[in-house]
Amino acid sequence: MSYFAGIEAVQYEGHESLNPLAFRHYDPTAMLGDKTLEEHLRFAVAWWHSFAWEGGDPFGGRTFDRPWFGSEMDKAKAKADAAFELFAILGQPYFCFHDVDIRPEGASFAENTANLEEMVDYIGTKMESARTRLLWGTANLFSHRRFMSGAATNPDPDVFAFSAATLKTCIDATAKLGGENYVLWGGREGYETLLNTDLKREREQAGRMLTMVVDYARKIGFKGAILIEPKPQEPTKHQYDFDVATVYGFLKDFGLEGEVKVNIEQGHAILAGHSFEHELALAASLGILGSIDMNRNDYQSGWDTDQFPVSLRETTLAYYEILKAGGFTTGGTNFDAKLRRQSLDPEDLVAAHVGGMDICALGLKKAHAMIEEGSLQAALEARYAGWNDPANTAMLTSDLATIAERVARDGINPEPRSGKQEKLENLVSRFVA
Amino acid sequence: MSYFAGIEAVQYEGHESLNPLAFRHYDPTAMLGDKTLEEHLRFAVAWWHSFAWEGGDPFGGRTFDRPWFGSEMDKAKAKADAAFELFAILGQPYFCFHDVDIRPEGASFAENTANLEEMVDYIGTKMESARTRLLWGTANLFSHRRFMSGAATNPDPDVFAFSAATLKTCIDATAKLGGENYVLWGGREGYETLLNTDLKREREQAGRMLTMVVDYARKIGFKGAILIEPKPQEPTKHQYDFDVATVYGFLKDFGLEGEVKVNIEQGHAILAGHSFEHELALAASLGILGSIDMNRNDYQSGWDTDQFPVSLRETTLAYYEILKAGGFTTGGTNFDAKLRRQSLDPEDLVAAHVGGMDICALGLKKAHAMIEEGSLQAALEARYAGWNDPANTAMLTSDLATIAERVARDGINPEPRSGKQEKLENLVSRFVA
Amino acid sequence: MSYFAGIEAVQYEGHESLNPLAFRHYDPTAMLGDKTLEEHLRFAVAWWHSFAWEGGDPFGGRTFDRPWFGSEMDKAKAKADAAFELFAILGQPYFCFHDVDIRPEGASFAENTANLEEMVDYIGTKMESARTRLLWGTANLFSHRRFMSGAATNPDPDVFAFSAATLKTCIDATAKLGGENYVLWGGREGYETLLNTDLKREREQAGRMLTMVVDYARKIGFKGAILIEPKPQEPTKHQYDFDVATVYGFLKDFGLEGEVKVNIEQGHAILAGHSFEHELALAASLGILGSIDMNRNDYQSGWDTDQFPVSLRETTLAYYEILKAGGFTTGGTNFDAKLRRQSLDPEDLVAAHVGGMDICALGLKKAHAMIEEGSLQAALEARYAGWNDPANTAMLTSDLATIAERVARDGINPEPRSGKQEKLENLVSRFVA
Amino acid sequence: MSYFAGIEAVQYEGHESLNPLAFRHYDPTAMLGDKTLEEHLRFAVAWWHSFAWEGGDPFGGRTFDRPWFGSEMDKAKAKADAAFELFAILGQPYFCFHDVDIRPEGASFAENTANLEEMVDYIGTKMESARTRLLWGTANLFSHRRFMSGAATNPDPDVFAFSAATLKTCIDATAKLGGENYVLWGGREGYETLLNTDLKREREQAGRMLTMVVDYARKIGFKGAILIEPKPQEPTKHQYDFDVATVYGFLKDFGLEGEVKVNIEQGHAILAGHSFEHELALAASLGILGSIDMNRNDYQSGWDTDQFPVSLRETTLAYYEILKAGGFTTGGTNFDAKLRRQSLDPEDLVAAHVGGMDICALGLKKAHAMIEEGSLQAALEARYAGWNDPANTAMLTSDLATIAERVARDGINPEPRSGKQEKLENLVSRFVA
Ligand SMILES: [Co+2]
Ligand SMILES: [Co+2]
Ligand SMILES: [Co+2]
Ligand SMILES: [Co+2]
Ligand SMILES: [Co+2]
Ligand SMILES: [Co+2]
Ligand SMILES: [Co+2]
Ligand SMILES: [Co+2]
Repeated sequence: MSYFAGIEAVQYEGHESLNPLAFRHYDPTAMLGDKTLEEHLRFAVAWWHSFAWEGGDPFGGRTFDRPWFGSEMDKAKAKADAAFELFAILGQPYFCFHDVDIRPEGASFAENTANLEEMVDYIGTKMESARTRLLWGTANLFSHRRFMSGAATNPDPDVFAFSAATLKTCIDATAKLGGENYVLWGGREGYETLLNTDLKREREQAGRMLTMVVDYARKIGFKGAILIEPKPQEPTKHQYDFDVATVYGFLKDFGLEGEVKVNIEQGHAILAGHSFEHELALAASLGILGSIDMNRNDYQSGWDTDQFPVSLRETTLAYYEILKAGGFTTGGTNFDAKLRRQSLDPEDLVAAHVGGMDICALGLKKAHAMIEEGSLQAALEARYAGWNDPANTAMLTSDLATIAERVARDGINPEPRSGKQEKLENLVSRFVA
Repeated sequence: MSYFAGIEAVQYEGHESLNPLAFRHYDPTAMLGDKTLEEHLRFAVAWWHSFAWEGGDPFGGRTFDRPWFGSEMDKAKAKADAAFELFAILGQPYFCFHDVDIRPEGASFAENTANLEEMVDYIGTKMESARTRLLWGTANLFSHRRFMSGAATNPDPDVFAFSAATLKTCIDATAKLGGENYVLWGGREGYETLLNTDLKREREQAGRMLTMVVDYARKIGFKGAILIEPKPQEPTKHQYDFDVATVYGFLKDFGLEGEVKVNIEQGHAILAGHSFEHELALAASLGILGSIDMNRNDYQSGWDTDQFPVSLRETTLAYYEILKAGGFTTGGTNFDAKLRRQSLDPEDLVAAHVGGMDICALGLKKAHAMIEEGSLQAALEARYAGWNDPANTAMLTSDLATIAERVARDGINPEPRSGKQEKLENLVSRFVA
Repeated sequence: MSYFAGIEAVQYEGHESLNPLAFRHYDPTAMLGDKTLEEHLRFAVAWWHSFAWEGGDPFGGRTFDRPWFGSEMDKAKAKADAAFELFAILGQPYFCFHDVDIRPEGASFAENTANLEEMVDYIGTKMESARTRLLWGTANLFSHRRFMSGAATNPDPDVFAFSAATLKTCIDATAKLGGENYVLWGGREGYETLLNTDLKREREQAGRMLTMVVDYARKIGFKGAILIEPKPQEPTKHQYDFDVATVYGFLKDFGLEGEVKVNIEQGHAILAGHSFEHELALAASLGILGSIDMNRNDYQSGWDTDQFPVSLRETTLAYYEILKAGGFTTGGTNFDAKLRRQSLDPEDLVAAHVGGMDICALGLKKAHAMIEEGSLQAALEARYAGWNDPANTAMLTSDLATIAERVARDGINPEPRSGKQEKLENLVSRFVA
Repeated sequence: MSYFAGIEAVQYEGHESLNPLAFRHYDPTAMLGDKTLEEHLRFAVAWWHSFAWEGGDPFGGRTFDRPWFGSEMDKAKAKADAAFELFAILGQPYFCFHDVDIRPEGASFAENTANLEEMVDYIGTKMESARTRLLWGTANLFSHRRFMSGAATNPDPDVFAFSAATLKTCIDATAKLGGENYVLWGGREGYETLLNTDLKREREQAGRMLTMVVDYARKIGFKGAILIEPKPQEPTKHQYDFDVATVYGFLKDFGLEGEVKVNIEQGHAILAGHSFEHELALAASLGILGSIDMNRNDYQSGWDTDQFPVSLRETTLAYYEILKAGGFTTGGTNFDAKLRRQSLDPEDLVAAHVGGMDICALGLKKAHAMIEEGSLQAALEARYAGWNDPANTAMLTSDLATIAERVARDGINPEPRSGKQEKLENLVSRFVA
């Protein structure tokens, strides 16, 4: 008996379609450059928000009424059944999960592990008859009360131990299900008050744990990428993986910048005081761009609203950075997005993904067109063209005194040139409006 | 003829004093531990806000009416005279300056340099009969229109050249005046729109320029520290030296983490989504804490208000981090703070510094007392005490599989322990309330 | 068997006390002016955060382990027993509650009412042998899923009906327990998206409901004040009772500005882009200042953190406005504050209130001293003294043309005068630092 | 000699055009419903940002190099000549100005008035041969240092007088030039610190001044609308006309809600913690929607960036509210937008307006289509359809006790219904993506 009874598999019907449950822009098999849209976008459904989240917020409890809510193994399996129904309806190539999304909570590490293994087998079997693959797995080391003061960075070494053990099982599960990446989001790796926190020690613990994760994954032959997902705050007052630049410094410190990349979420970029495209461009320039969580925040809210994307301009500018960086390899477009808690119906879950996938597909096409057309890139190159002069390039390996002599001798007195921001913004509008 | 006519040198009169132009807490010669308050705090007046700023804001022009406003050399000297009057009134041990604060603007690099040198001589002469030393010098590479698109990171190599040349002259000036540090604040080293910006290239330019600064300073025998002052945005939409963590990653990338430290401003910490004490603690833990700009922002405003400090709790928590890190060496407490533009009177300039110095001095004393008393530190150590067990420490050099076995074997199932935040906050209140 | 076993009644021990569970500043019987501190401050414990909240946040569930958690009537009574224990330990004169805090949830309105009545009787009996009175009661019309789209402003008239009925029972309960105020906080009276919202209609519904509340309270002879608690957002994207100014316009529109006042929460003031003292001063100037929720937000967080107050400067400036407005009449100082979710121990609940009460008591004393001393008020009056000239007062009943003639004729050309902000800030520091 | 030499009048060329200085969507004469696009949109150029602003920001001075910069009368006339050139190039139907934008600053009120009158005559003459009309005039009572502490709300009655006199001359000028509205933006009507501010008195002064403005305008037969432009802060810490709701309460208090409307700026809505469409919808629902300033803020910046609009989704949602409210009567679409300070070229000024006008025109067309299509409105009505039942409507004139009886009797126990947010967002995307 289907949770999504009466909802057909979503079809591409073109932009004239009035069917609210059809794709208007996402034709998975259409070619764009040398890849299909599906190959470019690599969409994933997030198990937690779509199947485990109950619709609560800090001021109210469960609003959703899903038949699989509950803590028994058969509920977990019913949840998996519903998940694969949605994957099929959307034709989704990928999904993502935390351990706690797919398994019942046990009373001990041993029970957790047994539950996880049983569910991994169950899901593995379902995958045999489905086309949906695993984009990434991850460990939820933040919801259970034992993690309230951190996982890797907990003052209590027993929690460190429990976290390490859990990480092992989650990497195992991800590897077994053929995951193409393994993600770490340190939801409690931060602090509420510096008064009870030894920042230096906790950062060191985090660095050690990450090193062990990398070592273990490599040892068992896991081929996927290891990704950190930055977030500046929430739930903690300060999270150690604040943003891309912070993660980069952290990786450099522990010699992991060649081993670990980032999974960048639009909402987290905004919370950190950045634009999404900034974080993408920065990660690309540092060589650590891995994957994305394509869910936006409400600019008006100071917390993480995890909404499905709606802005064509924003998705276009995001994929523009991604395409310029060469596109995804192991990464993809995950919707770490949740329905509004008032969106109660099965149809809402489908519609939200359809809308999100469509606005991403269209944004990708626009971004591709902007690159093909070339004016933006040409304007950029023209702006820096002075650096092509060897006399100027030479300054980069010169010294202050030599340059000062040159300036004095030649009377260098630069006149500013227009940055042309509005013309470039209009140029983007030509594609997206 | 004195600008501050009628205002006497400020004296320490004790906390019962009702004199608004007396110190109630700052007794420069009083001992605290093994140093005097003056030696601990190392206060500095900022030339720019106190003498060059005219009281304008984005919606209105000059409100102040200073006799030295103007672009002639004699005005610059009158300004220096007034500055040293204020230094004397406050008994200030240090000052800080940008090149453009102390010299008239010339029509060329050569004129700028000549003007700067004349004023450095003038100030040097004044210093001979004053007790005030130079905490740091810096180059203003952001106000002139030639820098509108950046200095080191400008797309125009001629601006890079002009900036490099200017940096040389400012390092020379700082060295000549015996400066104990040299500071770089990259007010235009950032971007307004990614559409016209090559992030990677500009970051590379910044790294090269900083390397040249370090090399030149060392070559001429400058003994002071080289400091970067992070700021996340304003004037630009994004500044490359966003915060301490970002600067750290940048320094690591260019191999400069042993050469360059940070000058942390409270207001900039807030703009970046941090507390001041976070930035201080982080810099200390990374070994790059250099100096501070002790001026706050209004938490309600989204821009940098650069106000004099007023919160005892905030200054206490700041000096608590500084004292735990060993106190200042070359660094100090600079007031990069400006009067409100409605505070027109000479007396206002004195009163603002007196209030700021007093709240810092009292904060330092409270912080020192908290360290002496020891309860905060003891609570912190108790929280991490589990890590003293060798079986736990061993995990930091172990691996996931081994730890997982241990967790399974020993049935490790940690019970959370209270973080005691409110009790620790009350403990701070015992000192500051 | 006591939940707070081993914790003695908190005593005033003076500011030299090192006892973390003693008052250092709050001596309830000490006189300040013509009232005791207890009469001035009128402290209240909030039932919800202290007894009903489980320690969850959007990323994790229950951390607290209270023996009374559960949905049965005997748990509700055990919770009440624990509450009155805490009231006794703190010597608290007041408490506040929502219906759902004190009663088990029923399956229908009738069951809810029966449960509420039983618990009101139980609490009423407890009050007979306790000194703690009811500051205010209120209805929780936001946590149950039926209220997910609003209560009074719900698009579904059945929810409006259910809300009205519930409000009646809560006013009845408040009246029966001798409540001195009745509060309305419209946690879901707002919207998530304008796309599904008729703003005008919903505002009208809210106005009607409030009118019915006032009418009913008056009809049953309830003598207490009716208060609205403004909040700008969270849980909704936009709440109709955004801030004091918004509530005032709303009251004016429905002719209720003489019937309804505001309960102002510091944290909500901050979320709305105001300082707490702004909201207090504005409400006082409009004649609608009723009561306060004395819990702060973290300035760094974009959501409502509901922390106990710690800043002496902030509590002083708040009570300064309250005292200038004549002090509380029916209102008081409620702690709508919750422990951090890592603060698990019974002792933490006591310590948090002790710290909060103490910083309020000291702030009140400082505020009183600032008023007695008089310099701040004198400076204020001097600033506006020009308006005492009848020629100037006359302008307020004149017209533009007449004034323009006067300006032209007399050559009025005003010279600005210093606003003296820093001196006034230093004056406050003289009291609080 | 033209400032815009070489730039032709901008033509509508259709959306396939690659000409960066052509309209792709704005065909002024095209019909949309019963009005032309020009009649719907009523575009205006702002004199201040486009001609008077010099490109300065808090960290740097003038970047623009306009031949008319200077304080002499002939410069003011050259500036007016350039303005009318731009109006002609854009085919703009309207402009807006402050007194200080168009006249040189005089040494007294009399000189200011004489200068203003001379320039009004000069502009009036230019308007005879141009098609551009005056959308609104306004007084700049915030830039000159005499206004640093407010205009109407200044503690100094002489400033109140000077402001009143200036307002008279600006209303006169606006009336003489046939202005269709008169706008008041209280840039300094607020405070920097409550410590030196009598909120109640200042609010009263503001109410009196506004009453005099209305009386004078009516007395001289000015037919246009009087509009207040809300802004929450900047330049002041708090501005009295914080947002639409605040202005409404203020108008109600002084009995002016039938006389005065609002001019809503997108950027100010954002600074106040609202969406633009919220402020529009609220003003429409209160009957005070007058006109708009169609310039956005950067969501990432905490200050007013006054950028030209670029987001189609945002302009669509804005015009959707405006069209639902019946469209503009006296109001229009003003670009209170400035070039980025790096956009130095004459062409930039044209391009920025072209891009802004185009994204507005397209947004208007999309909004019109959404209304014509009707699904959004139908979904809204369906959501509230329960209120059409007389038994439900009756509750709005009932009382709590009667409703409670009904709920108990009928066992009303509402089940929540989906809010369908994502489906509605997708519906908008169908039009704008
Ligand atoms: Co998120
Ligand atoms: Co995510
Ligand atoms: Co600053
Ligand atoms: Co600074
Ligand atoms: Co709150
Ligand atoms: Co509250
Ligand atoms: Co603006
Ligand atoms: Co405007």
